Amino acid sequence: MSHITSMLDTYPKDLGGVDRGKLAECIAACFECAQTCTACADACLSEDMVPELTKCIRTNLDCADICSAAGKVISRHTGYDATITRAILEACAAACKACADECGQHAGMHEHCRVCAEACRRCEAACNELLVTLGRGA
Amino acid sequence: MSHITSMLDTYPKDLGGVDRGKLAECIAACFECAQTCTACADACLSEDMVPELTKCIRTNLDCADICSAAGKVISRHTGYDATITRAILEACAAACKACADECGQHAGMHEHCRVCAEACRRCEAACNELLVTLGRGA
Amino acid sequence: MSHITSMLDTYPKDLGGVDRGKLAECIAACFECAQTCTACADACLSEDMVPELTKCIRTNLDCADICSAAGKVISRHTGYDATITRAILEACAAACKACADECGQHAGMHEHCRVCAEACRRCEAACNELLVTLGRGA
Amino acid sequence: MSHITSMLDTYPKDLGGVDRGKLAECIAACFECAQTCTACADACLSEDMVPELTKCIRTNLDCADICSAAGKVISRHTGYDATITRAILEACAAACKACADECGQHAGMHEHCRVCAEACRRCEAACNELLVTLGRGA
Repeated sequence: MSHITSMLDTYPKDLGGVDRGKLAECIAACFECAQTCTACADACLSEDMVPELTKCIRTNLDCADICSAAGKVISRHTGYDATITRAILEACAAACKACADECGQHAGMHEHCRVCAEACRRCEAACNELLVTLGRGA
Repeated sequence: MSHITSMLDTYPKDLGGVDRGKLAECIAACFECAQTCTACADACLSEDMVPELTKCIRTNLDCADICSAAGKVISRHTGYDATITRAILEACAAACKACADECGQHAGMHEHCRVCAEACRRCEAACNELLVTLGRGA
Repeated sequence: MSHITSMLDTYPKDLGGVDRGKLAECIAACFECAQTCTACADACLSEDMVPELTKCIRTNLDCADICSAAGKVISRHTGYDATITRAILEACAAACKACADECGQHAGMHEHCRVCAEACRRCEAACNELLVTLGRGA
Repeated sequence: MSHITSMLDTYPKDLGGVDRGKLAECIAACFECAQTCTACADACLSEDMVPELTKCIRTNLDCADICSAAGKVISRHTGYDATITRAILEACAAACKACADECGQHAGMHEHCRVCAEACRRCEAACNELLVTLGRGA
């Protein structure tokens, strides 16, 4: 995560009132979750029981795409627009919750689903915590 | 848009009660808007007055990322999860509205912003129309 | 494709010696192929014989990711770097060829694979034609 | 990077003869570079001297898109196709080299460009090292 904090520390303008620690955590969680969900979709695809994992694969792919988008949006600070930031963080938290629930159902049988469910829960929490710091009226 | 309808027509399972025309329109609008916003960010970057367009560039980049994610999510039908679909469509409509508003302010001076604002408005409308057909209780 | 040509026509600076028609074709083909491969991966996932389509799904996902990246890169013209453009177009042509070959093997049985193989062939050809116009020494 | 190695360790099938350490390093480097380049493009956009950084911003955006695609492709192992993997790793190394060179020119004046150039160099090296382990005849 050091590259994330280095980039926040070297941003040339004021970052506004954002909680820098929670922002860095959320950026890291989004990129981590995007990678983990991409890998989990592929691991499910290699399971012999892939017909029972098709919903899980689909949810993984959606979650990876949305986490990637969220991670990029919150890595930007120029011309900050709270409406866009809130909307994509809410979508990301929703996708992470759905994917954690789905992967959680297979966690007992597939270790990769257990690892992935944990990454999704961390990302869901990080998005929700960042949303809280962004305030209600934003 | 013929490739989009061809893929919908050859999907091996039932697509559920979705309005196929509105779905195809929304998929097309998301990919079109992702391309147009990517190109508009770059066109703004090549303007001599780029210092006055930095917020526009940032909004274009956010909108492109979110439209890409939305376009991929609604191109999938396996194991449909209304919560994820609604959340990313709402985020996409919000980003498109913000980008249309921002580009709209420069539309009189920069033709590419005018073209981009129109693509954003179309995509915002397509997301909202698809959301309506997905129903309230989903 | 009209939004693509509109954005090329309104670009504020000279586009260099690029063949504008071939560029527009290639941008359109990349975004079309990204959508089609995303949809084909999902259609394969919904087939009863999904265990026989896992390589096809994986190739579809790779091809979609690479086409998305290529489509964005060639939508930009500011500070043109021939090395990057050539490298991503070559990767895109390679991915499209591999995906067309793979989907082609299932085209007789799955209509979505036939549609997808055609989109991949078009995109492979468009990348190769654009590469030719970019010249050897670039 | 622990989530990356956890996912490799829980992959249900054999990973083939791949060097697991170099693979994990390369996956991490691609996602790190995608984030750093996204943030550097935005930091450049917030500099007062943005007109002198337009080529840097564009190169950052290209590099971010290509690193994202490469990071996803090498996170998949099902139905491995050496041609696609090699092509996207070569494109990624080329983009990282170009971006490191460009950011390197501004590293003395902009700390974020220095941090970004380092991330690009790490990713370029990781791609090249992974390419070596994939062998010549692949």
